[in-house]
Amino acid sequence: MVTINENYLKLRASYLFSDIGKRVAAFKSKNPQAEVIRFGIGDVTRPLPRVCIEAFHKATDEMADAATFHGYDDGGVGYAFLREKIAKVDFQARGADISADEIFVSDGAKCDTSNFQELFSQNVKIAVPDPVYPVYVDTNVMAGRTGEFSGGRYKGLTYLECNAGNDFVPDLPKEKPDVIYLCFPNNPTGAVITKSRLAQWVEYARQNKSLILFDAAYIAFVRDPSLPQSIFEIEGAREVAVEFRSYSKTAGFTGTRCAYTVIPKSCMAFDAEGASHALHALWNRRHTTKFNGVCYMVQRAAEAIYSPEGQEQIRELNDYYLRNARFIVSEMKTLGYECFGGENSPYIWVNTRTDSWAFFDKLLEKAGVVCTPGAGFGKCGEGYIRISAFNSFENVQKGMERIKKTV
Amino acid sequence: MVTINENYLKLRASYLFSDIGKRVAAFKSKNPQAEVIRFGIGDVTRPLPRVCIEAFHKATDEMADAATFHGYDDGGVGYAFLREKIAKVDFQARGADISADEIFVSDGAKCDTSNFQELFSQNVKIAVPDPVYPVYVDTNVMAGRTGEFSGGRYKGLTYLECNAGNDFVPDLPKEKPDVIYLCFPNNPTGAVITKSRLAQWVEYARQNKSLILFDAAYIAFVRDPSLPQSIFEIEGAREVAVEFRSYSKTAGFTGTRCAYTVIPKSCMAFDAEGASHALHALWNRRHTTKFNGVCYMVQRAAEAIYSPEGQEQIRELNDYYLRNARFIVSEMKTLGYECFGGENSPYIWVNTRTDSWAFFDKLLEKAGVVCTPGAGFGKCGEGYIRISAFNSFENVQKGMERIKKTV
Repeated sequence: MVTINENYLKLRASYLFSDIGKRVAAFKSKNPQAEVIRFGIGDVTRPLPRVCIEAFHKATDEMADAATFHGYDDGGVGYAFLREKIAKVDFQARGADISADEIFVSDGAKCDTSNFQELFSQNVKIAVPDPVYPVYVDTNVMAGRTGEFSGGRYKGLTYLECNAGNDFVPDLPKEKPDVIYLCFPNNPTGAVITKSRLAQWVEYARQNKSLILFDAAYIAFVRDPSLPQSIFEIEGAREVAVEFRSYSKTAGFTGTRCAYTVIPKSCMAFDAEGASHALHALWNRRHTTKFNGVCYMVQRAAEAIYSPEGQEQIRELNDYYLRNARFIVSEMKTLGYECFGGENSPYIWVNTRTDSWAFFDKLLEKAGVVCTPGAGFGKCGEGYIRISAFNSFENVQKGMERIKKTV
Repeated sequence: MVTINENYLKLRASYLFSDIGKRVAAFKSKNPQAEVIRFGIGDVTRPLPRVCIEAFHKATDEMADAATFHGYDDGGVGYAFLREKIAKVDFQARGADISADEIFVSDGAKCDTSNFQELFSQNVKIAVPDPVYPVYVDTNVMAGRTGEFSGGRYKGLTYLECNAGNDFVPDLPKEKPDVIYLCFPNNPTGAVITKSRLAQWVEYARQNKSLILFDAAYIAFVRDPSLPQSIFEIEGAREVAVEFRSYSKTAGFTGTRCAYTVIPKSCMAFDAEGASHALHALWNRRHTTKFNGVCYMVQRAAEAIYSPEGQEQIRELNDYYLRNARFIVSEMKTLGYECFGGENSPYIWVNTRTDSWAFFDKLLEKAGVVCTPGAGFGKCGEGYIRISAFNSFENVQKGMERIKKTV
């Protein structure tokens, strides 16, 4: 008899964004004329950069001719043309010592942050921020590293509390977790981390032989030159950190799918006898066994952003959303709400001073505006909503007008 | 201290195709002038069908304009425009009762056949064919469902022996495994399964509450109208089977990446108390948590093959490789070798009457031709090689000429 992985039964019924989807669908069926403005799911709306469009067409033409056709990406870890540009522009140019063969190209940071836990033993102690991107939690629940869900949290996980008191950057925990998920600029709070705070985390991981899984999917929004653009700008991080990057927000690729993971060859984990094993080799085995590479045209489109012209175009693209973010912060503050994030980040974290699902429902039903209730991201998210700046400026203006009349 | 998943240490050092890659690289460094002809890894060489190229360009232009831009694929399970055509053309038109919402679009059958085992309990009994596509085995090793590798096999797996005596279609095992991997047309043997043999497997699974994972990645090569084109043409399969399909070979998409998995809503697995759970719901939770959909342009290109023009173009594409296959079979038979497959399949399975790695080395060193040694696919592959028909007809002719002079 085929039996199921019963850890799935511990999961709450659905993913946060499908809950929201259902409420929006119910609203639209009651109000078929209403034009809903979406500040909920963090999905981009601007067209792909011109350099990417051009690269896509060119690569498509190559696939039309046997002489220039591309089959399997050799090994499935990404073409050298892309990995070499990533290493040079995203890391070496900023003083981070990362080489092309430490980079694994994939179809999404969601996939990579989901799958990476497969490399760990069943009994590693996991720490996640609270509020948290739900994928870090759900994938560890599926893998059987937690107990039941009770009182708003899964047993067996360490929750790193983030609140206004610590600038939404978690304090070093006393429990000494083995694996620590960090995300900066943060989803959902929009918080950033300074080099000195990040250096404390790296030092903590080194002392405890812990590993930091650093999700930098929103790094392209960092404009303050004093902030780190990679954990590998921090001395000592090569031994204790893995970094996840994505073109989803960097280059508007949510529907195009490309990302990469950086695993320094000096980053180790241990067996039960204490012998060290390179995570690079383990991930290479996992990635080449279970994955078959990213679409050739997509890799060419990603490569295109590394030209001077491409760098300018992605900067303009993200400046557009940052302008939305500044506008939202300014309007919400005018209405008397305390706001976090929205600078160096596309997310604004708003203290609603009330129940976050109630505030969500009010915005939806009175203003036809969709946000994300903070409680969906964890206990510490209660009382907050996340507003996403991924929309047209016209819609942002219209949405804020409607919110003004409602709250 | 972060500890590793020690099941990875049970894996043999590398994936079959990287072993081959190393031998080929060594040969080329010794013989820099030699032109190597590759009949090894099953990678396509023909350009993408014209309908796909046109759809790609059109979809790329849509991504250049905010009004027609596409972000995340809603839910990540595939656009309705693609899923509806799949259901209609690939299933309903052949009398297989499959609806669009039973289809999950993904980036590869390798990924799907790898990931599907996550839904099962740790102690399900797994059966794989021998010879076997190594991914079915390695992913269950990583998940901890096997013992050590010893005497050419992993302890704890049931190996379904395939040989000339059973036409390379495994006999029903006495052990009653819970999960059974089947692959037809088969990789590596090129064998096909008749409706009546497949019906026996379905009946066996129904009697034992087992699940059949049916890998149909090579189904587009079936030309004999009496053979099944889907397991869902078999009465009763909707309760006990999941089917994996791919555009990699169907439409030359190895470098483009698109595939799909079919999970009937009536297909169940069980918890420890014997209560039934729909695999459709479990996979939906897994897929939407860990995956974020396939590139919009790629889905449009896949959709294009379902027009009458597209169907004609993929038929021509695969006829090209089938012509290669017939030629290889005929030449090898002339040389006195017993051959299997190569009809309704792009793979030819050749009895070398000697050690398969020795024969591989001989073809590489004397003829500059790369094949795949059967022993790499399991104990029952010893003595055989797999020749892949994925190459230009000119190269196939040249390769066979060289083999003639060598053996």
